[in-house]
Amino acid sequence: MASKAIAVVAGVGPGTGASVARKFAAAYPVVLLARNPDNYESLVEEINKSGGKAIGISADVSSPESLKAAFEKVEQEYKGAPIAAAIFNASGRFVRKPLLDMAVEDFEAGYHVSVKGAFLFSQHTLPGLLKHAEDKDAKYPPTLIFTGATASVKANALMSGFASAKFALRALSTSIAKEFAPKGVHVAHAIIDGVIDIPRTKDWLKDMPAEAKIGADDIADAYWHLSTQSKRCFTNEIDIRPMLEKW
Amino acid sequence: MASKAIAVVAGVGPGTGASVARKFAAAYPVVLLARNPDNYESLVEEINKSGGKAIGISADVSSPESLKAAFEKVEQEYKGAPIAAAIFNASGRFVRKPLLDMAVEDFEAGYHVSVKGAFLFSQHTLPGLLKHAEDKDAKYPPTLIFTGATASVKANALMSGFASAKFALRALSTSIAKEFAPKGVHVAHAIIDGVIDIPRTKDWLKDMPAEAKIGADDIADAYWHLSTQSKRCFTNEIDIRPMLEKW
Amino acid sequence: MASKAIAVVAGVGPGTGASVARKFAAAYPVVLLARNPDNYESLVEEINKSGGKAIGISADVSSPESLKAAFEKVEQEYKGAPIAAAIFNASGRFVRKPLLDMAVEDFEAGYHVSVKGAFLFSQHTLPGLLKHAEDKDAKYPPTLIFTGATASVKANALMSGFASAKFALRALSTSIAKEFAPKGVHVAHAIIDGVIDIPRTKDWLKDMPAEAKIGADDIADAYWHLSTQSKRCFTNEIDIRPMLEKW
Amino acid sequence: MASKAIAVVAGVGPGTGASVARKFAAAYPVVLLARNPDNYESLVEEINKSGGKAIGISADVSSPESLKAAFEKVEQEYKGAPIAAAIFNASGRFVRKPLLDMAVEDFEAGYHVSVKGAFLFSQHTLPGLLKHAEDKDAKYPPTLIFTGATASVKANALMSGFASAKFALRALSTSIAKEFAPKGVHVAHAIIDGVIDIPRTKDWLKDMPAEAKIGADDIADAYWHLSTQSKRCFTNEIDIRPMLEKW
Repeated sequence: MASKAIAVVAGVGPGTGASVARKFAAAYPVVLLARNPDNYESLVEEINKSGGKAIGISADVSSPESLKAAFEKVEQEYKGAPIAAAIFNASGRFVRKPLLDMAVEDFEAGYHVSVKGAFLFSQHTLPGLLKHAEDKDAKYPPTLIFTGATASVKANALMSGFASAKFALRALSTSIAKEFAPKGVHVAHAIIDGVIDIPRTKDWLKDMPAEAKIGADDIADAYWHLSTQSKRCFTNEIDIRPMLEKW
Repeated sequence: MASKAIAVVAGVGPGTGASVARKFAAAYPVVLLARNPDNYESLVEEINKSGGKAIGISADVSSPESLKAAFEKVEQEYKGAPIAAAIFNASGRFVRKPLLDMAVEDFEAGYHVSVKGAFLFSQHTLPGLLKHAEDKDAKYPPTLIFTGATASVKANALMSGFASAKFALRALSTSIAKEFAPKGVHVAHAIIDGVIDIPRTKDWLKDMPAEAKIGADDIADAYWHLSTQSKRCFTNEIDIRPMLEKW
Repeated sequence: MASKAIAVVAGVGPGTGASVARKFAAAYPVVLLARNPDNYESLVEEINKSGGKAIGISADVSSPESLKAAFEKVEQEYKGAPIAAAIFNASGRFVRKPLLDMAVEDFEAGYHVSVKGAFLFSQHTLPGLLKHAEDKDAKYPPTLIFTGATASVKANALMSGFASAKFALRALSTSIAKEFAPKGVHVAHAIIDGVIDIPRTKDWLKDMPAEAKIGADDIADAYWHLSTQSKRCFTNEIDIRPMLEKW
Repeated sequence: MASKAIAVVAGVGPGTGASVARKFAAAYPVVLLARNPDNYESLVEEINKSGGKAIGISADVSSPESLKAAFEKVEQEYKGAPIAAAIFNASGRFVRKPLLDMAVEDFEAGYHVSVKGAFLFSQHTLPGLLKHAEDKDAKYPPTLIFTGATASVKANALMSGFASAKFALRALSTSIAKEFAPKGVHVAHAIIDGVIDIPRTKDWLKDMPAEAKIGADDIADAYWHLSTQSKRCFTNEIDIRPMLEKW
């Protein structure tokens, strides 16, 4: 009998990652990855108390060694488990600076997490996703989702590092989607075009109605829907914006 | 008390339109529009027998008069009803011809249905959609969905009329989305990139597995999901393709 | 011996069309098409006086009959002449209106000229362009250029008709480019993203420096450059904006 | 009096870079950067013999230190010279591999040269470009050009590293274009969509006519044209393909 399939979420914080984790935890044991344990500890406890199953692992997705160690822990915990869903929600430091004031480190901040990190995360999760694709009894095809941003399709001034990283992530997502779709893995990219309503942004757009921000739980619903699409209906890209967003 | 909201589907045939109609009929009384009554009669009967409510109206979406008459019938049947969902699934005659062999009528076949028809359909449904947007008790924001195709984003040789119509429809969808989102109407465009598995295409890709075609019911599921998104999470465009599609 | 190749410019007015006409008149006898003879008469005179050769023909590009008659006059004047360059610079009436206030005529104003007109113009000029492609002594491959706008790639609110027409034109251009490139015809689309500095716009952006507007002569230079590209270097799309444009 | 403006070309080899260098050397003293002196030595000699002025500097564009040293040499040679044109033509190692077989080094090969290298090159050339923008007597606005590829807009399977780097480069180019256009610097990105006819590709497409490949000199002509556009007509992106390319 196949091991029970798990879901892995990278980039868990008090926003989208947490919402996504809760949503997928209703269906699968979940692995939550974040650099800082503060970002997942209470959530892991919450999920485990409410009948789900979660473990948190501290990991830096931009570090091959750190991510390797993290997935060794996953293997210890869920030996040989297929992966039903892998969500890459990590994002590099957002740097908004004139090009001539930007240190190489500023410029590369986006790349290391959003691109190299997404590449490494994909390499670690695709074997488990492929395994799930071979499970004839699986309810849904395995799904790998990448969180993008407005900057995935729009490169504004002062955003050279962030936008180039997000454009790159989008390309990576498409390339993986094309390679692995014939093997049964559904890969999707989400262009999150707007401010997400999370603790860090609570003072943004303060004078605007709630519909000026994106709901983190709503993103989780959209990701869940993607993960339930059949092999005869893969959506490889969605955009998401709040009702009041200008675009 | 508000009248019960309805759903309107234009372009009902034995494929996507029928699947969409069935899906939305589970939640709303539905109005089915098609040029030929043969395309909706048995479906209307099926829906009404199975506990839903459906009416079919013969209409040519490319004709202002025909569409006006059709919506007068809708008004007779569902007086003042808000519209929870309007799905434009009609598509002009597909013409694949060298440019120099193409009659004006060939070239315009796509435009009249896909562009002018979509414009007229939008004008007739937006008042009802706006009415639904004002209903505080509505479960979901009203949604207007347009069915696009590969040719919505890719203009190949010999496809000048079809592709220009589908590009135009995509622009129309975006323009309406931007105008009406602040008023609470969710507008979405779906790029259907592949062969849909319907009676007309049963001999296409015959030697390929089922995953080489898009499931019409799966499209309906995706549209339904779009129609359930909250005001804090509008997806304005999705692509859809089967697992085995090359893209 | 081959007849001397000509250039044909549709949509000649006191702006881009005139600049393009002057530019190409330096190399080829030119045919200028405009609905209103006022738009080409003085220009025809100017070109003929300054050593070039020009004829003006009154034509409505959106009318098959009118365009047919116009090209019969071209044939009378330049019997069997190959076409070295054909520039479609006509544009439908710009209508900016809420969707629900837009008459069908408003919506279709863009389509008739920009899409149907471009289709008809292409059908009339491609035989001459193909003829030029077969001329081994031709200095440059024949070139067909379409003038687009910001709205060719961006569909804003209140611009449903204009944007859908410009999206459609872009698709048409690409489809023709793909069909005719193997036959030696170079087809290009120009996204003119900004206000062109012409008499009609002289009061726009008045407080801004000259670099806030696009120079009509500069567009003509860009089109000329496109028309001189070799068969080993076809550019199928350019964007053009002034230095001070926000994009 | 202003120092004579120079042009800087990064990524000089026996193909596009050499053609570009020759073209710009007809107007400006040129600086040629390449990792391997073999790639520029004979070209430097050729240009200097034929009446131009060229220096070659060995540099690894992906290394901040190496590029810093290179531009110190430029400063020694052409003290305080404004830069009329800077062309970034370097490209990372092309790696085509299944994602799961790709080493981090393979994946990053594209990034280091095409993205980080382009960022560093921009930081080193923009001060000189800005200086040229202030020269009232300059014939043309200063121009910074980046060489892209099919993969700049199309991310195929097995191309995750290359495509993500090229997408990123495109975003970088746009971001810089938007930041520096108001300051008078013209930034352009070229999508080179096809095989360039260079010594390394001489056996590719052997059975096809010459029009199946892009001419390196033709690319240089297109770049030169970009560099001559006025402040009232900046083209920020062009595509380039040979007549016989499928796209």
